[in-house]
Amino acid sequence: MKFKSPPVNSLSLDFITEFCIGLEKLENNRECRGVIFTSAVPNIFSSGLDITEMCGKSMEHYAEFWRAVQEMWLRLYGSNMVTVAAVNGSSPAGGCLIALTCDYRIMVENPKFVIGLNEAQLGIVAPFWFKDTFVNTVGHRVAERSLQLGSLHSASEAHRLGLVDELVPEVKLQEKAAAVMAQWLALPDHARQLTKSMMRKAVLDRLVAHREEDVQNFVNFISKESIQKSLRMYMEMLKKKKR
Amino acid sequence: MKFKSPPVNSLSLDFITEFCIGLEKLENNRECRGVIFTSAVPNIFSSGLDITEMCGKSMEHYAEFWRAVQEMWLRLYGSNMVTVAAVNGSSPAGGCLIALTCDYRIMVENPKFVIGLNEAQLGIVAPFWFKDTFVNTVGHRVAERSLQLGSLHSASEAHRLGLVDELVPEVKLQEKAAAVMAQWLALPDHARQLTKSMMRKAVLDRLVAHREEDVQNFVNFISKESIQKSLRMYMEMLKKKKR
Amino acid sequence: MKFKSPPVNSLSLDFITEFCIGLEKLENNRECRGVIFTSAVPNIFSSGLDITEMCGKSMEHYAEFWRAVQEMWLRLYGSNMVTVAAVNGSSPAGGCLIALTCDYRIMVENPKFVIGLNEAQLGIVAPFWFKDTFVNTVGHRVAERSLQLGSLHSASEAHRLGLVDELVPEVKLQEKAAAVMAQWLALPDHARQLTKSMMRKAVLDRLVAHREEDVQNFVNFISKESIQKSLRMYMEMLKKKKR
Repeated sequence: MKFKSPPVNSLSLDFITEFCIGLEKLENNRECRGVIFTSAVPNIFSSGLDITEMCGKSMEHYAEFWRAVQEMWLRLYGSNMVTVAAVNGSSPAGGCLIALTCDYRIMVENPKFVIGLNEAQLGIVAPFWFKDTFVNTVGHRVAERSLQLGSLHSASEAHRLGLVDELVPEVKLQEKAAAVMAQWLALPDHARQLTKSMMRKAVLDRLVAHREEDVQNFVNFISKESIQKSLRMYMEMLKKKKR
Repeated sequence: MKFKSPPVNSLSLDFITEFCIGLEKLENNRECRGVIFTSAVPNIFSSGLDITEMCGKSMEHYAEFWRAVQEMWLRLYGSNMVTVAAVNGSSPAGGCLIALTCDYRIMVENPKFVIGLNEAQLGIVAPFWFKDTFVNTVGHRVAERSLQLGSLHSASEAHRLGLVDELVPEVKLQEKAAAVMAQWLALPDHARQLTKSMMRKAVLDRLVAHREEDVQNFVNFISKESIQKSLRMYMEMLKKKKR
Repeated sequence: MKFKSPPVNSLSLDFITEFCIGLEKLENNRECRGVIFTSAVPNIFSSGLDITEMCGKSMEHYAEFWRAVQEMWLRLYGSNMVTVAAVNGSSPAGGCLIALTCDYRIMVENPKFVIGLNEAQLGIVAPFWFKDTFVNTVGHRVAERSLQLGSLHSASEAHRLGLVDELVPEVKLQEKAAAVMAQWLALPDHARQLTKSMMRKAVLDRLVAHREEDVQNFVNFISKESIQKSLRMYMEMLKKKKR
């Protein structure tokens, strides 16, 4: 599955909705046992949640957007398919989350590519299920420090911290991702799926049990004037950067 | 305690029953404060649960066998004694579990010896308490990947992942195990035991609270025709290998 | 904040009470966003809880002392400020706990300085919230082994285990601590504080929910004749060492 939503594969409501529909089709297709996520846009895997969806919109819109983000995570983290992230560009915030939900993460060893849950840098807070997914991958201490600092880690640092499993040169990425997929698909589906579910169930169940509460928290938080102001400033900064 | 049940120290119902009686005696013997587990069979620590106990038998037999496996784990993981695994051979599945329950794991640095919870390779799933013991030792991420792939790790890889604490040449194994035991026995029993219990209680309590449910899950799963077929094929493969 | 209670910055009831008052003032001072903890006493950060408070006193005194220790931990681990430990000397038991509650730990790379939760060496047991703080920092396996052995780790070993984040030469310590503080203060307070709280809330809530029970456990345990005897022997040993 190739993300192709230039300029930066940001996760807009439309993008996420289409993504979830695509995932559901694959999940229900008995002939599809695994999926590799990568980007068709140079230098960026995904820039994460689209800030324009969280800025200057109605409470209803924020709620709808957040339910879509939850849905995407639930489908990805709970997928029965083998999921491999072939990270061929930077991957902040929600982009990092997509990689974190996969069974295996391969990243191009380009010193310019960064990855991390940098929400704190924007003045916002990653929800508990982003955090849980992160802790399951890198452990409590690394997550605590990285989340508080909103760190974006270079590929080599991400590898050292266990945030990605393997680094490869860009030309080897697709070949490597296919080899990893073949290795995981060699296992009997049934045993692999039950094992995956056993490992992730507690964290998945936690969001399912608190889903509406989490939507309300998000809507209340994001609609605060101070947060809106931070996001507007951040978007201004991004625009200036581009010029 | 030397495992001597050739050819591969497989954990049959008889073996486990005797093992538990032996453990209970040591546990109740005030003069015995620690135990070292090792193998008297060359090249194998223990091959894990005896597949013949799980194949072509009655539901009652499966239930009896599983209760014995639970009992063994509860005694080992909850032992008040200092327990050291001197792993002098390969140690898949249940053999790895015995090592994981110990306070310290030393393995012979022989590139032919492997260790891991490889249940998924056989088309079966490690129960949640195998998983909990594994996560407590190597962390969530390593466990998730290793369990899904049913990985058997070489001694050096097992050391790198934290699955074993130390590697030694075969000739040094008993000497090293004795030295580790002496180090642990130097602590006041009471404080060490309370600390051990504090670290392991949550995981032990979880099985105790769900013991009969876990037996039923196992019996239902293992008696499925598809699983029985997988196990028969696996046994055929093992027989062919031997010839 | 410089600990200055010679000879070894031991955490007496008076020291802890004053420390908590100081912390509360800083916490309520809107101009104070961070605090660096270090020692004004050469070669020692803090020797931990004052054993004289736990030996030969009344049950009421033990209870009062323990409530103060709980209070100190709740304030430190739950602080909204950025907290940095500049560990410029040995830091056993309660001294290590103070470091563990911080957002970042820098230690002087002096082979004579040791750090760890060595309670088991004294025949006593670290309470569950010391353990939880430790597990959150170094993971379950390292904590299990280190707590059972009552290990005091050299600075370099502590760094390897993740018990401290960074080692520096003594002359660079204050400069480094200030640089780390500046890095953490660069984040928006609100987002950083909410993130910190999200990471630590489960562990903080656990003590709050069991606070009186934990006091009773401590009082019952510490007032046992066998424990009192261990502590008296330990104090005798310390006195002899000094002569």
